[in-house]
Amino acid sequence: MSNQERLWTRSRQAVYAEITSVAMGLFLEQGFEQTTIDQIAATAAISRRSFFRYFGTKEDIVLGDLASQGLLLRDTLEAIPLAVAPWEALREAFRKVDGLTRQRDVMLKIAKMMYETPSLRARSIEKHLQWQELLVPNIRLRLGIDGDDPSDPAADAIVSSAIACLDVAGQLWVRTGGTADLADLYDRAVLAVRTPIEKT
Amino acid sequence: MSNQERLWTRSRQAVYAEITSVAMGLFLEQGFEQTTIDQIAATAAISRRSFFRYFGTKEDIVLGDLASQGLLLRDTLEAIPLAVAPWEALREAFRKVDGLTRQRDVMLKIAKMMYETPSLRARSIEKHLQWQELLVPNIRLRLGIDGDDPSDPAADAIVSSAIACLDVAGQLWVRTGGTADLADLYDRAVLAVRTPIEKT
Repeated sequence: MSNQERLWTRSRQAVYAEITSVAMGLFLEQGFEQTTIDQIAATAAISRRSFFRYFGTKEDIVLGDLASQGLLLRDTLEAIPLAVAPWEALREAFRKVDGLTRQRDVMLKIAKMMYETPSLRARSIEKHLQWQELLVPNIRLRLGIDGDDPSDPAADAIVSSAIACLDVAGQLWVRTGGTADLADLYDRAVLAVRTPIEKT
Repeated sequence: MSNQERLWTRSRQAVYAEITSVAMGLFLEQGFEQTTIDQIAATAAISRRSFFRYFGTKEDIVLGDLASQGLLLRDTLEAIPLAVAPWEALREAFRKVDGLTRQRDVMLKIAKMMYETPSLRARSIEKHLQWQELLVPNIRLRLGIDGDDPSDPAADAIVSSAIACLDVAGQLWVRTGGTADLADLYDRAVLAVRTPIEKT
């Protein structure tokens, strides 16, 4: 990469980050549906046409965030010693990334927007599928599953259930207006899934 | 409802079923992407305009199927005595509905189409969210959770993990070309999720 290309990449990333920051601010302030692309472009001091060089849709802005969280999650999970069992490692990774990212009230607003805007909800689930692909290889290692055995569902099942629990916890967290503790809701969700039910 | 209205409803349902059957046949024969709405309309002997009175998109046809399966699943689950524990009841309901619906080779083709067509994959996940809403009330009853407690994640977590396991099983079933047993893959997925891992 030449110096000029490097500079170009860096300034591209800066504009991307700037648009994201401006747009998230507008979404949280006045609502996702109510914010137009023209408003975002005007506030970021770029043209509408420039906007579309960076993002295809408004949804992409919010979801770009979720995609980079997936990468962060993978790296965090991979840094946890392989001796730690799958569910414990996933719990630790979720907690670390959650703590790293944002202030609680901002997170709550973003989560609320995500769960209550149908177009975002649908696409956030697609992103969660991508998380699954990112996390499964490491969980296979922890389970000692041969990388070439395509018919072993264990790692996919664990990752996909853990993400399902995270999703349920996030949804209830939003529904309780953030009064419940997100990490605690996740732990209770996992406990419900994993504990044998005593019949009465 | 007048007799005329009843007749109208019935003939509407018949046309709906006819378009679905014709379209599914074409999808399985020549592929989802390759089939056009014009072809479906021509084969069902209706106009393009009539087609759009019944379905908004091609995806709707395949997903209508998934939606009615969700209702069938709810009814099947609700018919299982409440003394049966949540995971066992869900397993029984999945097995019954699976056995009821279709021949194995047709199911495999539909599953393959679902997992390998991105637009169908995304929307099938949305439909699974609807299944979740349909099944959660009954699982709450089985757990003895107060219907008004919005902060208990147990029922949502169990249903959502069970659907995640079903999805993983379906995906692996398709990946193995239907050689593995779908019900067995589901059981192994649930086992992986629910069994404590022994550390070595």
